[in-house]
Amino acid sequence: MPVRYTPPRPDELLPVKGVALGTAPAKIKKWERDDLLLAAFDAGAVAAGVFTQNRFAAAPVAVCRSHLAASGEVRALIVNAGNANAGTGTAGIRAAEVTCAAVASILGCAPSQVLPFSTGVIMEPLPVDKIVDALPLAHRAIAPDRWFAAASAIMTTDTVPKGASRRVTVDGAAITATGIAKGAGMIHPNMATMLSFVATDTPLSVALLRELTREIADVSFNCATVDGDTSTNDSFVIVATGKAPIAPITRSDDPRLAPVRTALTEVAVALAQAIVRDGEGATKFMTIRVEGGRDVAECRRTALAIAHSPLVKTAFFASDPNLGRIVCAIGNGAAPDQDAGHVSFWLDDVQVVKNGARAASYTESAGQRVMKNDEITVRVALGRGTAAATVWTCDFSHDYVSINADYRS
Amino acid sequence: MPVRYTPPRPDELLPVKGVALGTAPAKIKKWERDDLLLAAFDAGAVAAGVFTQNRFAAAPVAVCRSHLAASGEVRALIVNAGNANAGTGTAGIRAAEVTCAAVASILGCAPSQVLPFSTGVIMEPLPVDKIVDALPLAHRAIAPDRWFAAASAIMTTDTVPKGASRRVTVDGAAITATGIAKGAGMIHPNMATMLSFVATDTPLSVALLRELTREIADVSFNCATVDGDTSTNDSFVIVATGKAPIAPITRSDDPRLAPVRTALTEVAVALAQAIVRDGEGATKFMTIRVEGGRDVAECRRTALAIAHSPLVKTAFFASDPNLGRIVCAIGNGAAPDQDAGHVSFWLDDVQVVKNGARAASYTESAGQRVMKNDEITVRVALGRGTAAATVWTCDFSHDYVSINADYRS
Repeated sequence: MPVRYTPPRPDELLPVKGVALGTAPAKIKKWERDDLLLAAFDAGAVAAGVFTQNRFAAAPVAVCRSHLAASGEVRALIVNAGNANAGTGTAGIRAAEVTCAAVASILGCAPSQVLPFSTGVIMEPLPVDKIVDALPLAHRAIAPDRWFAAASAIMTTDTVPKGASRRVTVDGAAITATGIAKGAGMIHPNMATMLSFVATDTPLSVALLRELTREIADVSFNCATVDGDTSTNDSFVIVATGKAPIAPITRSDDPRLAPVRTALTEVAVALAQAIVRDGEGATKFMTIRVEGGRDVAECRRTALAIAHSPLVKTAFFASDPNLGRIVCAIGNGAAPDQDAGHVSFWLDDVQVVKNGARAASYTESAGQRVMKNDEITVRVALGRGTAAATVWTCDFSHDYVSINADYRS
Repeated sequence: MPVRYTPPRPDELLPVKGVALGTAPAKIKKWERDDLLLAAFDAGAVAAGVFTQNRFAAAPVAVCRSHLAASGEVRALIVNAGNANAGTGTAGIRAAEVTCAAVASILGCAPSQVLPFSTGVIMEPLPVDKIVDALPLAHRAIAPDRWFAAASAIMTTDTVPKGASRRVTVDGAAITATGIAKGAGMIHPNMATMLSFVATDTPLSVALLRELTREIADVSFNCATVDGDTSTNDSFVIVATGKAPIAPITRSDDPRLAPVRTALTEVAVALAQAIVRDGEGATKFMTIRVEGGRDVAECRRTALAIAHSPLVKTAFFASDPNLGRIVCAIGNGAAPDQDAGHVSFWLDDVQVVKNGARAASYTESAGQRVMKNDEITVRVALGRGTAAATVWTCDFSHDYVSINADYRS
């Protein structure tokens, strides 16, 4: 059960002009469900993406980067769950390219206009025949209103499908942004999500879309962390089909961009938070906000030290105001010249530490009251500047261990 | 139950000339056991220490650093379990100083010749009265053969007391090195242990002892990691009483130093590994060895990325050769310009990855065979240099979560 996240109803995921989606069971694992997604775009769509920083970046990530490097024109995404096609060397690259070629042949486009994605077990050969065999079925199923089925097909240890939509008006026309994501374990900044795809019908230039995608990733998926592991496959892609009846937006100072940016950002933030809320075994959702740093980097390092500490995460799981563990994590994440005597922090509205020691006003019962909540904000003041950073994370439970100890069985 | 670690019998912890130890119940927590240790040294003993890098270093750490900064002469260590005296501000410093003064008054030495240590819950005021009240009892109990009782008194979530002794011959005289440690959770390099104290009767100059202590910490406690959290209190101290009947050793090129260095190093390595073997909830002990790097730093970063990955640690717990998770961790820890195609790794004698992809010779059953062991070596070759680094760690089990979720209750 995710923490305070209700998956969207299928009709809440609004169709985006120029996008059709179809799913099929490729039976990559022993799942009784669709595990293959084909997203097809009308001619004229462009895409931009940000990808994992892991040095063992998966084969599909390498192929995506290469396919997106040219014009950015895309006609399809092809996504499988159950096998990550990572740690698979040159054979893995070939497998991803064979998949793209098969999609291209069905859609009548160039293989370089197809972006491949995989998620699942690492270091096992991609069963490319199963994917190619299931492709016609997925293609026959494509329709504009199948976002919910798409969100379901890309799940691995996710407990619910994740999707979000926004609609705004630009130049009198309705503009839509709809996205889906899958995540759960192995979620960490740079990149944060396992896989997320957002589409809009806004006509955007490739250059502007690339800028926008990086900018939105930084305030959404790069703020989300479940267990500190950066996956080999993490990918976030925005596709702009250009089918909305307005003149193209090509400059970042075009005033019409503001509502589009807001809509896309809101979708990405909703998806990134949904991934954390559905973190493996999560029972609580924490917002870690670090303020008063000299720069964003030190705020972010401190926030991540808190978010990644297994001792902090198990204390949240236990609803135990063992707040010394947060003090300890702050001490590990802060800059070497941080003066502990300038640090204060709060749990929601309760001040716990003031200037490096327990606040005189703090009581165990006040701490206990906040810790019992399933959604908690930890706010830290470093007292040495004006920079700030926020990350979202979840607690560390028995179920995290169970899910990850049993994942392959 | 620790992984393949049998605690020493009391008579295996050899007395060190010039050292006497006594324990008492200060009742800092609701424990039916001694929780206070007084170690007293004859006049002439010197000490050196390495301490946590945490910016919220505990009050006793600050006091130790200050007391050790002068001549290095020490007459006592005073150690309490159950309260860390960390995150306690200037009141915490005062509490540690009051404790030192009480010991000094009993032993008839200067307060600056007493080193204070605390371990336990963070950010609660140290019950200094309880400690001072129990001191006379600990003092009446002191005797040279009480190392085992000392190792027991400093435990927190440790399941067994940890100690080790070595005896070597130098200039025809028997030289002894005996040490104790406590650890369990929150174990991470810089510093690695919660608390470890080693004593030898070798006559060593303070300058040489300081050099030796740093050197030994680097190959012992700084190679040990349980959960990646660096405690506020981590301390490793070596005391040299100088009571052995040999001429003082003052230079690092003195050939008589070699057997002493070996004895002290073996004691420290045994204690550091014991801490990992008794890591909170540990069921397996893993040695992570990374070779073929350009420098030690990148080998160490890669080894720690593997050792700290919750996904890797839960896979070991499950005895599941889900080896893609190790690939992923290597990809997170390695240098940004690491070529994945040059990476190979082995589980004990089984090659898993060769040049960035699964080795042709690898079989699931071979991986499964190794993963069932309770002691496993992961060896990684980065293929770009001659540097190497080793860390020791343990797996991540249900019990880790239980122990840390319930610690304060």
